Amino acid sequence: MSAPVVRYLTGITTTGTPHLGNYVGAIRPTVQASRRAGSENFYFLADYHALIKCDEPARIQRSTMEIAACWLAAGLDPQHAFFYRQSDIPEIPELTWLLTCVTGKGLLNRAHAYKAQVDKNAAAGVDVDADVSAGLFMYPVLMGADILLFKAHKVPVGRDQIQHIEMARDMGASFNHLYGEHFVLPEAQVDEHVALLPGLDGRKMSKSYDNVIGLFAPREQVRKQIFSIVTDSRAPGEPKDTEGSALFQIYQAFAAPEETQQLRRAYAEGISWADAKQVLFERIDREIAPMREQYEHLVAHPQEIESVLMLGAARARERATPFIRELRHAVGLRNLATGATAAKKVQAKAQLPSFKQYREADGLFYFKFVDAQGRLLLQSQGFASPREAGQSIAALKQGQAMPADGSATLAAGVAAAEVEAALKALADAGN
Amino acid sequence: MSAPVVRYLTGITTTGTPHLGNYVGAIRPTVQASRRAGSENFYFLADYHALIKCDEPARIQRSTMEIAACWLAAGLDPQHAFFYRQSDIPEIPELTWLLTCVTGKGLLNRAHAYKAQVDKNAAAGVDVDADVSAGLFMYPVLMGADILLFKAHKVPVGRDQIQHIEMARDMGASFNHLYGEHFVLPEAQVDEHVALLPGLDGRKMSKSYDNVIGLFAPREQVRKQIFSIVTDSRAPGEPKDTEGSALFQIYQAFAAPEETQQLRRAYAEGISWADAKQVLFERIDREIAPMREQYEHLVAHPQEIESVLMLGAARARERATPFIRELRHAVGLRNLATGATAAKKVQAKAQLPSFKQYREADGLFYFKFVDAQGRLLLQSQGFASPREAGQSIAALKQGQAMPADGSATLAAGVAAAEVEAALKALADAGN
Repeated sequence: MSAPVVRYLTGITTTGTPHLGNYVGAIRPTVQASRRAGSENFYFLADYHALIKCDEPARIQRSTMEIAACWLAAGLDPQHAFFYRQSDIPEIPELTWLLTCVTGKGLLNRAHAYKAQVDKNAAAGVDVDADVSAGLFMYPVLMGADILLFKAHKVPVGRDQIQHIEMARDMGASFNHLYGEHFVLPEAQVDEHVALLPGLDGRKMSKSYDNVIGLFAPREQVRKQIFSIVTDSRAPGEPKDTEGSALFQIYQAFAAPEETQQLRRAYAEGISWADAKQVLFERIDREIAPMREQYEHLVAHPQEIESVLMLGAARARERATPFIRELRHAVGLRNLATGATAAKKVQAKAQLPSFKQYREADGLFYFKFVDAQGRLLLQSQGFASPREAGQSIAALKQGQAMPADGSATLAAGVAAAEVEAALKALADAGN
Repeated sequence: MSAPVVRYLTGITTTGTPHLGNYVGAIRPTVQASRRAGSENFYFLADYHALIKCDEPARIQRSTMEIAACWLAAGLDPQHAFFYRQSDIPEIPELTWLLTCVTGKGLLNRAHAYKAQVDKNAAAGVDVDADVSAGLFMYPVLMGADILLFKAHKVPVGRDQIQHIEMARDMGASFNHLYGEHFVLPEAQVDEHVALLPGLDGRKMSKSYDNVIGLFAPREQVRKQIFSIVTDSRAPGEPKDTEGSALFQIYQAFAAPEETQQLRRAYAEGISWADAKQVLFERIDREIAPMREQYEHLVAHPQEIESVLMLGAARARERATPFIRELRHAVGLRNLATGATAAKKVQAKAQLPSFKQYREADGLFYFKFVDAQGRLLLQSQGFASPREAGQSIAALKQGQAMPADGSATLAAGVAAAEVEAALKALADAGN
């Protein structure tokens, strides 16, 4: 028996230009993890989220392209992982509304990001909701939709995001409670050992410290940045300390253990800072150069990225579209011609399985066979006329068995024996 | 010159079963208004809204069907008006998110419906957001999307809804301010003369008073209800007072002025209450019976209603789909292969018109010709290869005129002369 598939989901913010710290801390380990066996991996460009903070359209577009190019250049395989742009999945805003209706406002009041803004406003003596957009407030619901729509089991996040995953669980559980078990309740997966890369000045590499090394910046710029890493003043020939050396730590994040060992020895033997920086530059360049080439190619051919994302959206929607249909049905957004609508008739025959005939937007005639509780058992193909659909139903009733001609197929999770039993129950009742 | 078209939009709540009071106060005047000249009329079944208050799926489905059947039976012409189900328009939840991002949370804090619940909780000494769902809080944004998506000019509402229309204006204005003029700012249209029908007991007809006459209830039930209208105790032969007579007022709502005049005389001449009730029943039945027949037919054939709604959704989406595309582009949710993405090149040539080549999901190769500000001038057909697209561009550059072979067409609102001028500017710059 094979183990069940575990689904991982990661949202990628589409603002800013990635730096080496993002690469080491997030992109590289995530791309590696996307290849783990027994998993399905969903990565999406969170551009609806980006709209909360950014009202510069050209920047949204440019960032989306650059970030997508980064991930593809860093080795994300869009044939294997699900890689899509959030705004290409209309099921996400729709699910956002469905979840909005089952989410208590109180839950959102307690979100850290919102509360931080409220506290800041309170401290400043202004209205607590000053400069708070409804987008900031509703962000956890959109995130809930991102996660629940793809039935993700695990959402790798930093500690600051755990609450959002718990909120997604709460929303999913509320919905399940009201409408039956539809959602997988996700879990946060917190990696306690995220590789933190020091920046040029030794503090954590971060745009806010202005101490970053660009990931796919031009090669000469990367070299310059690396040569500006702060070191102590020991002269060439003097032994150097690896402890607290940003240069050494950055090297370690790229080098194999043997290579790291070699540099440690070189430090002890008094390698000059200039030589050490050259070693670091070359080591990084060895890993990044082929990716940079790919990155530059993609950025010069945005239509290739667009095609990858369109394909990714199509793959993701193969999951999302039938699932939202199920969810819509669960809450009562239904084709009026199916199920409980024909209430009078249904009430009279409530204790029996039944056939439902209807016409779809494609103009064809269909039927379903549902059990006494309304659960779908069989779904027909489309027929050119109601008469043909009726004949197929008559044949089913007579044969009391699955149709041999494939004119109807079992619903998910239904066994042929259940259909036969239901057909028999119907016949026994004289229908 | 013809006057500009005025667009009206009305949301129809999909809960409950309509009674005669709804018919006289809302359905009948609205259906009449839908035929006004120079107008476009949008009527939608607000089932996403219904989810805020109702978590019974079968009731949502049943109500949607009954309410749709009511409006169709009452004469709404779905070929003329736009008649659709909110949840069939995926552009609505998408726009809801876009508006969420431009709406201040403070605006929503001030919504009457939300504040009423807060006040109630405060009075009860519980948490102010107790039992407040995010759906109740976000309802004005969904309503804003309903209205703004179809560029409605006028939204007929009761006084209690004026604030929501003002909030929709605010959202539209915020968006327009940030991203350019996209939305029409709607106005509330308050009818001060809504016909209020008295109920069986003389108070306003309302389900909460349990004094209603069903609109399409079975004929005999309507007769019984009418015969239970409260009257005074005057005997047959005694003159009766029309003033304060619920029976008379209901009759007036259905009868022509001459008929009303006749009943007034009959009152004066001492018509018995039984006879007066029979007169009222017959008058109402004359108007309602043909509609009831149509209503019963529709409810027995929900697939017909479904087809009408599917068609209505398709018509509504002919407006919604291109508009949401425009809005997505405005905020930066764009095809990466178009416009500002190729930023480096665009920056260098920012002052010149340019050709953009790209590939679409259909596998064909296209180009656009845009002016220096990025405005679309020409849109090509699809070419089988990039080479053919390139040849077409070369021919355009050389000819400095519109292509004779139809391989590219003018964008909306662009004159051929503008294209020629732009081609010349490009040539002059040595491109």
